[in-house]
Amino acid sequence: MQDALQEIKRGADELLIEAELVERLKSGRPLRIKAGFDPTAPDLHLGHTVLLNKLRQFQELGHQVIFLIGDFTGMIGDPTGKNATRPPLTREAVVENAKTYREQVFRILDPAKTEVRFNSEWMEKLGAAGMVRLAATHTVARMLERDDFHKRYTSQQPIAIHEFLYPLIQGYDSVELRADVEIGGTDQKFNLLMGRELQKHHGQPPQCVLTMPLLEGLDGVNKMSKSLGNYVGINEPPREIFGKLMSVSDELMWRYIHLLSFEPLATIEGWKRQVAEGANPRDVKVRFAQEIVTRFHGRAAAEEALAEFEARFQRGALPDDMPELSLAGVDGALAVPQLLKLAGLVPSTSEAIRQIAAGGVRLDGERVVDKGASVPAGATVVAQVGKRKFARVTVV
Amino acid sequence: MQDALQEIKRGADELLIEAELVERLKSGRPLRIKAGFDPTAPDLHLGHTVLLNKLRQFQELGHQVIFLIGDFTGMIGDPTGKNATRPPLTREAVVENAKTYREQVFRILDPAKTEVRFNSEWMEKLGAAGMVRLAATHTVARMLERDDFHKRYTSQQPIAIHEFLYPLIQGYDSVELRADVEIGGTDQKFNLLMGRELQKHHGQPPQCVLTMPLLEGLDGVNKMSKSLGNYVGINEPPREIFGKLMSVSDELMWRYIHLLSFEPLATIEGWKRQVAEGANPRDVKVRFAQEIVTRFHGRAAAEEALAEFEARFQRGALPDDMPELSLAGVDGALAVPQLLKLAGLVPSTSEAIRQIAAGGVRLDGERVVDKGASVPAGATVVAQVGKRKFARVTVV
Repeated sequence: MQDALQEIKRGADELLIEAELVERLKSGRPLRIKAGFDPTAPDLHLGHTVLLNKLRQFQELGHQVIFLIGDFTGMIGDPTGKNATRPPLTREAVVENAKTYREQVFRILDPAKTEVRFNSEWMEKLGAAGMVRLAATHTVARMLERDDFHKRYTSQQPIAIHEFLYPLIQGYDSVELRADVEIGGTDQKFNLLMGRELQKHHGQPPQCVLTMPLLEGLDGVNKMSKSLGNYVGINEPPREIFGKLMSVSDELMWRYIHLLSFEPLATIEGWKRQVAEGANPRDVKVRFAQEIVTRFHGRAAAEEALAEFEARFQRGALPDDMPELSLAGVDGALAVPQLLKLAGLVPSTSEAIRQIAAGGVRLDGERVVDKGASVPAGATVVAQVGKRKFARVTVV
Repeated sequence: MQDALQEIKRGADELLIEAELVERLKSGRPLRIKAGFDPTAPDLHLGHTVLLNKLRQFQELGHQVIFLIGDFTGMIGDPTGKNATRPPLTREAVVENAKTYREQVFRILDPAKTEVRFNSEWMEKLGAAGMVRLAATHTVARMLERDDFHKRYTSQQPIAIHEFLYPLIQGYDSVELRADVEIGGTDQKFNLLMGRELQKHHGQPPQCVLTMPLLEGLDGVNKMSKSLGNYVGINEPPREIFGKLMSVSDELMWRYIHLLSFEPLATIEGWKRQVAEGANPRDVKVRFAQEIVTRFHGRAAAEEALAEFEARFQRGALPDDMPELSLAGVDGALAVPQLLKLAGLVPSTSEAIRQIAAGGVRLDGERVVDKGASVPAGATVVAQVGKRKFARVTVV
């Protein structure tokens, strides 16, 4: 029991209410573990897997996962029309997305212990009257307590009224699903607690809430997200995953290990000790990157990615310390000649162009042949001019 | 055209936007005049008729009235469960109430030019998704601009979220009904304007809004309402209506005449002049009370009510000036002995009881025989002890 609890809490930000979860775990019955997903973004990246891994862990402990696709709100889209990235989805698009989604999540979750559900199932039956009743369960003041609403209200940013309905819908999903536990990102805490309140309102024991930290993207700053380009997709080729993970800063590496590795905590503590005593963090990074590539592409692919990576840098290891810079892109990218100049690797862009023509410029060890090449915002590259000039550049 | 506009504006509080209404009147087509009614209170009183008379006037000008029964929200009731007077109504109860309602309103409205509608017709089709879309059309800040919401929010009184949905539903009714004009009480202005906004949102020309003042009850203070007991029901016996109207203060009489009389404005001005020059306002009150009784019960009934009223006071006219008092009732009524004492007509309640036993006490000219009699809160009576002691007492 205590072991199970420790496993469940590993990497989590907060567990509410621990005593209630212990009670339910004691019952011995398989618990219903709910997690909600947006139907619009079917390309899973490592950020999603923090939560999926936690679900998988529950499955390994014998529990039932409910993978809830929030298609009801997806089919509404953003009715204010202000958010171009959230146009309404057709039912066909939702079904299509769900299929892609399912294929991907089942690389992590056990299909036999996963129930895939769509909240349109009950929301369409609820009707306008049910929606009014749902809205009656909470006050405006309670809703304005939510951090982001509070900030927007006090800074006079508009909040459309339907935004107050979404947390209620998410909470009501827990009622319909009779969830025992709901897992979500730390930014979801308010909404997860809403599930507790609505379950109580409907005479059900309130779900336990487990929040998971949000994974930072490769930039180490923003939440990992496809639209920011700072992500590692689980469907990317092994070499890409490996290379991207090798490119993160040492600090971010520990964060990723903390949230993504399945290695025993003792092993990870051992690595930390070794690095503190002078070992090269690059070796830890290699082990971690191999773990992740193995997870999604198998051991052989991981070995191959490592070999390829090492070959690329065979002309000599990267210097242990090189300048690290963040440079602002223009329209989402930074041209290589400009990048080299701003990084101080060449005195001018014309010199950079000459160096490219002469074959003296490499990005992440690969020779740049096109003087029109550019690096997209969100990417971090090791830029190299000649044999000795290096800089690690993040385009923002 | 100008005449029609003057008629429409008579007694009204505000017309928005006059120029738009003029345009529509010019079109010559029958306009769609909407007014919404609560399905819970089928006993019409004079307060309701202020609005109904205005609708009738539109009918006389050739327009179509839409008598909208808000059964959708009526069938939801008050979902917070805090308002015992708004339990959810069954569909049968709504239909039954509507029948009673209809019988009564057709004593004022022309059935041939009246469309009776129920908003459940479109609200049930709207669904939860439609409700979310509707909620997306307005912001929380806009809703909190409404006077009562603003007051409650700033004084930390709870506002349940569904209360934000009701004005939107009322506005959406105008979209479905393609209303040209909506009429409501001054307290409805915000909701009526919501109709304009939602019509614009749906590509319709926005309705004109006509607000009517709220009629004070017999106490001259609160809005006339059945629950406060300060009302004159249109289904009350002629004698009751007549007596109640004769009991109002001179000041309230002018207010009632202003809002309820159909007499030409010139005639009313004439009365005012005569009273200013010394004529007895009681004569005006009689004419007005007769007009109202005639309206609902016919001329013969009005004559009879007057004769009876005069007979009751045949022992001599009431003194022109007598003390007027407001006395606080206990649990909604004031015992007669207590009333007589507080009004200074007797030195003690025991003296009052002796006077009642001796047949020396009258209320509105009628002998009081029961020493346990009481006067309900909201009523105004002329109390009389012996031949010369009078007081006009309002129990509050």
